[in-house]
Parts: sequence; C-alpha cells; structure tokens
Amino acid sequence: MSRVRRKPGTKEALLAIGRPLVLEPEKIKGKWKDYFQNDRPIHIELGTGKGTFISTMAQQCPQSNYIGLELKEEILLTAIRKALGLNLPNLAFIWGDAKNLTDYFMPGELERIYINFCDPWPKTRHAKRRLTHANFLNIYNRLLIKGGEVHFKTDNQNLFEFSLNQFCEQGWQLKNITLDLYRKLPENNVATEYEQKFVEQGLKIYRLEAKTK
Amino acid sequence: MSRVRRKPGTKEALLAIGRPLVLEPEKIKGKWKDYFQNDRPIHIELGTGKGTFISTMAQQCPQSNYIGLELKEEILLTAIRKALGLNLPNLAFIWGDAKNLTDYFMPGELERIYINFCDPWPKTRHAKRRLTHANFLNIYNRLLIKGGEVHFKTDNQNLFEFSLNQFCEQGWQLKNITLDLYRKLPENNVATEYEQKFVEQGLKIYRLEAKTK
Repeated sequence: MSRVRRKPGTKEALLAIGRPLVLEPEKIKGKWKDYFQNDRPIHIELGTGKGTFISTMAQQCPQSNYIGLELKEEILLTAIRKALGLNLPNLAFIWGDAKNLTDYFMPGELERIYINFCDPWPKTRHAKRRLTHANFLNIYNRLLIKGGEVHFKTDNQNLFEFSLNQFCEQGWQLKNITLDLYRKLPENNVATEYEQKFVEQGLKIYRLEAKTK
Repeated sequence: MSRVRRKPGTKEALLAIGRPLVLEPEKIKGKWKDYFQNDRPIHIELGTGKGTFISTMAQQCPQSNYIGLELKEEILLTAIRKALGLNLPNLAFIWGDAKNLTDYFMPGELERIYINFCDPWPKTRHAKRRLTHANFLNIYNRLLIKGGEVHFKTDNQNLFEFSLNQFCEQGWQLKNITLDLYRKLPENNVATEYEQKFVEQGLKIYRLEAKTK
C-alpha cells in the first residue's frame, strides 16, 4: 500500500543486522520452538509494516512469540531498528512474502495469524492476491494448529465483505465481527500505523476473528 | 418501526375478509400443504408490512408458496387488500407474531424465512426482541427443512453486525453477505417499501443468507 523511496544500502543493512531478523526462515521451518528456545505459541503478522503492532504485542504478551513478516526492505529495516531498542526475546522478523508462508512454517507451527490493513487489490482480476482469498485461507488452515485463529482488520468495506464471504465459504468459524471497531473499542486493541491514520480521518475500521475448521 | 394510526373497524374488516388471510393458523399447523393444495416449498416473511415484497415474490415465483406474517392490523389490512386484486393461489397472510411461530408451523414445514428491515431494538436490554437473536435463530432452525435458509436485509449497521455474530455463534452457514446491496444489485432483488425509502435517502442496505446447520 505505501510507496517507499528506495534507499541505497538497505539490503546490505538487512543482511548485516542479525537478530531479530531471521535471514533464512526456510532453515528454521519446523524448528521455531528451537529458535525461540521455548514451547510458547507463535503469532505472525503478515505485512508488518513499520512493526508498531507486532512490537507492541510482543511487549504486552511475553507468554507468546511474535513474528513480523514484511517484503519491503525499507519498511522492514525501520521496523527492525525500532525493535532493536526493545530487545525482546519473543520477537522476530522475516524478510519475505505471505505467498511463501509454507516455505517458512510446518503445518501446525502457528497459533495465530494477524492480517492488518493489507492491500485490498480492488480489481476483480487481482482477487487472488488478497490475503483473505480462499487460496490463502487454505494455506493458513494448514499452518495453524487446530483451533488456531486469523485476526483480520481493514478499513476497506469491499475487502471486508469479500473476506467475510471467503471465510464462510471455506467453513471457518467467525466471531467478534465488528463493522465499526471504534464504536466500542476493546480495551486490548493494539492499533497499527495505518489504523491510527484512518481513525484520525474518520474512517470505519472493520474486524473479525476466524477459527480454523 | 412504523407508527400507524388506529382505524376503527380494522379488526372487524380482518375478521370478515377470508382468503388470503388465515385467521386461525394454529389449526393449519402441520397441514400447510393441504391449505395450498400442493407440495411446493413454503416461504414466509416475518413482518410483511404492506406486503409489497411477499406479493411480488408470489407473483414472480409460482413454484413456491408465500406467507406474509404481520402483527399490526392496519398494515396487514392494507397488504391483504392489495393482494386481493392479484388473486394469487400461492399467497397467504397470518395475523400474528414471530415469537409465536411454533404455534403456526411444525418442524420442517418451512423452506425459507425472509426478515426484511425488522425493528433493530437498539437498546441492549431489548436484544432478545431482535428477530436475529439466538433464541429466534434456534426456532427458525427447528421450523426450517434441513438446508433451509434465512434471508435477512436491514439498513441498520449495528443490527447487521449483531446478526452476523448471532448466526456465526449458532453455527449457521452464511453466504452472499453484502455490506452495500445497491453497489452491485442482484437482478432478482425485490425491494420492500422501507428499502425503497432508505435507498432514496442514500442509506446502505446490508444483506445475508444463512443456511441451517
């Protein structure tokens, strides 16, 4: 969604930064418990942006492990630099693409997937790129533990409508559906960067939780 | 929802009108096939108002039987008087209350229930009166055939949000969820009187279809 100016040296900086960035997640596949050195559940955010959400979650909930997945180097570098100062053992980042999720995780290795303000891909011919398309939901269903959940937030009405129908068609169990999150904001809501902007602009935020089949 | 002036003589007119009004639906319970003299599926609208929707449906789909349920005498009389001119053998009316539905129908006697722009009962303490409250959904689930459906339309965002969650919690299978019906209006949409007004006012119409467990 956001347009980022290319900055020379970003790749090199990422390659050199080390923890919390996991440079070769394919090699950790199936071994994330070893990576975090504990058996706690693993929650991932697809498209973590500047990382405010995932870093806040990791701070608030030391009883879970958190991974921020981000494809765009410049934003990822910002997220990691912010996280470095926090020095959280339960937070990691992957420089990667949601469509390659099965390269990074084994079935049942994740407990929760967060999708926050993902690209709505408004054109019908791009529907398969939406992170709540049935093809993606089927991948999530394999990678999540039984009873694992997807938590989804968006400001985009059409994407939310599409997502409701995709989840229902695929037989997920929906709960805590809201068409206006800020009407009765839950106390434990952690806002993303986009969310803060959208709410300031007076836009409605849609949200749902979906449990695997 | 609508405020209707009491007209003297309305009750008497209803008591005298005969078909298509069924004055004692309790006596037809379990025998609606006999009443319509065929085995075709039975669709009911809860709160039929002036009857535009149910009468139009009955005209368009002679292969199903239609029942309009309405509690308020003055509106019901208007609906029936309009229907008299159409002379449709597949259309009936009940002067009754949705909360007494089990007095009128046996389990499996209905194929579809339409709920169009019902009272949103916005106060939390009145939630049980909403026609999509879990208590009502459980009644519908008993009275509908297996695979029967509830088709629900409203202009009220909070009621729609509430309804989505109630249907999901009760394990109904949702489909064709739309957060703005008139953005891509289905060709077969039949508008109610309220719907026409609301759309003219620029309000959004929410809609869903829910299949029994």
